[in-house]
Amino acid sequence: MSAKLKPAARVAGNRQDVWTIINEAAAASPNQPIINMGQGFFGYNPPQFILNAAKQALDRVECNQYSPTRGRPRLRKALSEAYAPLWGRKLDPETEITITTGANEGMLSAFMAFIEPGDEVIVFEPFFDQYISNIEMPGGKIVYVPMHPPKEGGVKTLSAAEWTIDFNELEAAITPRTKMIVLNTPHNPVGKVYSKQELQKIANLCLKNEIIILSDEVYDRLFYVPFTRIATLSPEVEKITITVGSAGKNFYATGWRVGWLMGPANLIQYVAAAHTRICYSSVSPLQEACAIGFEQAEAEGFWDSCIQDMQGRMARFNEVWHELGVPYSEPEGGYFVMVNLSKVELPADYPFPPHVAERPRDFKLAWFLIQELGVAAIPPSEFYTEANAHIVEDYLRFAVCKPDDVLETAKERLRGLKKYIKQ
Amino acid sequence: MSAKLKPAARVAGNRQDVWTIINEAAAASPNQPIINMGQGFFGYNPPQFILNAAKQALDRVECNQYSPTRGRPRLRKALSEAYAPLWGRKLDPETEITITTGANEGMLSAFMAFIEPGDEVIVFEPFFDQYISNIEMPGGKIVYVPMHPPKEGGVKTLSAAEWTIDFNELEAAITPRTKMIVLNTPHNPVGKVYSKQELQKIANLCLKNEIIILSDEVYDRLFYVPFTRIATLSPEVEKITITVGSAGKNFYATGWRVGWLMGPANLIQYVAAAHTRICYSSVSPLQEACAIGFEQAEAEGFWDSCIQDMQGRMARFNEVWHELGVPYSEPEGGYFVMVNLSKVELPADYPFPPHVAERPRDFKLAWFLIQELGVAAIPPSEFYTEANAHIVEDYLRFAVCKPDDVLETAKERLRGLKKYIKQ
Ligand SMILES: Cc1ncc(COP(=O)(O)O)c(C=O)c1O
Ligand SMILES: Cc1ncc(COP(=O)(O)O)c(C=O)c1O
Repeated sequence: MSAKLKPAARVAGNRQDVWTIINEAAAASPNQPIINMGQGFFGYNPPQFILNAAKQALDRVECNQYSPTRGRPRLRKALSEAYAPLWGRKLDPETEITITTGANEGMLSAFMAFIEPGDEVIVFEPFFDQYISNIEMPGGKIVYVPMHPPKEGGVKTLSAAEWTIDFNELEAAITPRTKMIVLNTPHNPVGKVYSKQELQKIANLCLKNEIIILSDEVYDRLFYVPFTRIATLSPEVEKITITVGSAGKNFYATGWRVGWLMGPANLIQYVAAAHTRICYSSVSPLQEACAIGFEQAEAEGFWDSCIQDMQGRMARFNEVWHELGVPYSEPEGGYFVMVNLSKVELPADYPFPPHVAERPRDFKLAWFLIQELGVAAIPPSEFYTEANAHIVEDYLRFAVCKPDDVLETAKERLRGLKKYIKQ
Repeated sequence: MSAKLKPAARVAGNRQDVWTIINEAAAASPNQPIINMGQGFFGYNPPQFILNAAKQALDRVECNQYSPTRGRPRLRKALSEAYAPLWGRKLDPETEITITTGANEGMLSAFMAFIEPGDEVIVFEPFFDQYISNIEMPGGKIVYVPMHPPKEGGVKTLSAAEWTIDFNELEAAITPRTKMIVLNTPHNPVGKVYSKQELQKIANLCLKNEIIILSDEVYDRLFYVPFTRIATLSPEVEKITITVGSAGKNFYATGWRVGWLMGPANLIQYVAAAHTRICYSSVSPLQEACAIGFEQAEAEGFWDSCIQDMQGRMARFNEVWHELGVPYSEPEGGYFVMVNLSKVELPADYPFPPHVAERPRDFKLAWFLIQELGVAAIPPSEFYTEANAHIVEDYLRFAVCKPDDVLETAKERLRGLKKYIKQ
């Protein structure tokens, strides 16, 4: 290609990402069809009352045309009301809430709104992979702080709470150029729900250093221990916090691409401006459906059923690890479970393709599970920097938001691990 | 606000944009409800077969979850087939087509894919306003080339074809840093469909200087004269061209946010990478509906009916200008008409608010029409640089994609202009 047609550096990288490697492995596996416990999409539909709302919206002329760039007023109002009991006050739907094209584009909008080239953003490892390119797009520099798994994670099942931040490492990561910090609770992939004490420590550092907190709470309806929203710690913390939500995660509809950002008007105004420049406005009929979803969810008992349902799936799936004597991190929230497979012995002469062989052990575990057992999971070292990848090289991430028969088939197949396990 | 919380320069500007001014004027007008002929959204629904397809998609589990980042295979295949007769060959749905979140985010993806800070992009005036921020986001520098209205545009109705580019101006705008050029045909707001000869001249300059052509053809199903796609001029031109499409415009569903980019694999690959980093993937159930739309549209006679229908609306609305003796540019495509109101005398002492008084005459015309007649239209000088704004200061843009009763009410109200017209 002529030099003049060449792509910008931001898209020119060509290391294969984890999704490509896993999909390629799945296509090449003799165990077809693969049971996909990898990507975090739901294996079942949104609740009927929301599907009905979407269908009805499709009959209304204005629901098929451009929505206001900040989102449909009905959705912003419904969010304000649905969040009021969780927030302790009603957010102003005009100025404190803005709708985005999924949480993903919402977070990009936040970075675009505040990051100038060279500004630093603190991100915990393991991270949701899109953060990285989203921060780099406006020229941000990422400063990584690792979460540390429990020391005994390889030998016993412990709460995901045991994954911890070293607050000295966090403090050392802060510089005068630190503009934002990204927090994720309930956490993907770890399943940790940050405790109030941990959040308070993070918030204190951010207040002291005037750092904007971007709190990714897309799994906010899936918590199995008390869940604190950092924005609610105090009015001072609220002033520096933008909270991220996702209808895709809340309503089992990851393909709908409806998300939102909530926070003080003087931050949200710029985020909304960035969103307008990126996507103009977000999908109208599904915004309307989500509005109706939030209006009705409480009365439908939906939020309670979400938690019970996902805890049920989690328990059902994790039985197989108990059977195998394989430890995992017991999730406090979300729909991922991190399983520690240090006890699995990979055959010494196993033929891994070169691009897998050169990656940490978790990539080999993932490849092996796909090829030998026909179950796909995600190697989490993809979500650490190279320097810290070793921290999670024995773990794999499984998504349990799948129908019972899929979970049962996965378990049946995973029992085949038995012969590779040293007890 | 503390300096540390301040927004990035890319969102910090605060000149009121045309949409805010027009909405504010509409809210303040004594003529309620305002007849909105301003923004280009449809005042009627997508065709029933596409709405039905959307509703059916909502019942399918996989249609509610994440789609592949490049878009649903069924939609890419349907596009490849629907475009084959228009393109002269079948585009490869795997490598030559990628789905985006509306044309808007598609164009942003294209700029993000190719623009490094300081690269230049040529944009014709009047421009679609989102181009500007989308080019600036990756650090591009915009070089403007004005379209010139016909000399006699103030006294007679002429074809929109009479709006022309000065090819010397275009050539002079090219530098060694020119990376891309943005073309829009059928053109918003002018209504021009670039002739094959004009396109060939543009293409020759781009071939000679290795400039990527981004051809915004979102109104590609609404042409009233022969329409040429620049990518189809020759295999050489195709190699440097990315073509933009929009289901929002094609299917009367601007709120669905489904668009696409088509072009050579070695360009599309980077555009798709940028799209993944921006939105991850686009709305699933509506992608599926659009796939079915493209599969069935020809058999439904939909494309022919689109043209007839919009020509009918255009003719119906423009009757009022004939009655008033006010000239306009007869559109060759799209759903906008540019009306030349040089004959309208605004009362010398009319109380325009300061932020309107300081803008060119078209802003005053727009404000006046909203206040005195209750009809909203868009002042096109917003879509020129300040230096060139005077070129269109007598024009207003009206969107005719509105139901008949709206068009008739608009006409009735616009007859009130009579007393301000000097003949
Ligand atoms: C932590 C986290 N944040 C954000 C997202 C993206 O959410 P959305 O689908 O609404 O863009 C995901 C999706 O997996 C996620 O896990
Ligand atoms: C010339 C032009 N390009 C692109 C767009 C955006 O299209 P979409 O709604 O698919 O993002 C518009 C919408 O008005 C337009 O007029």
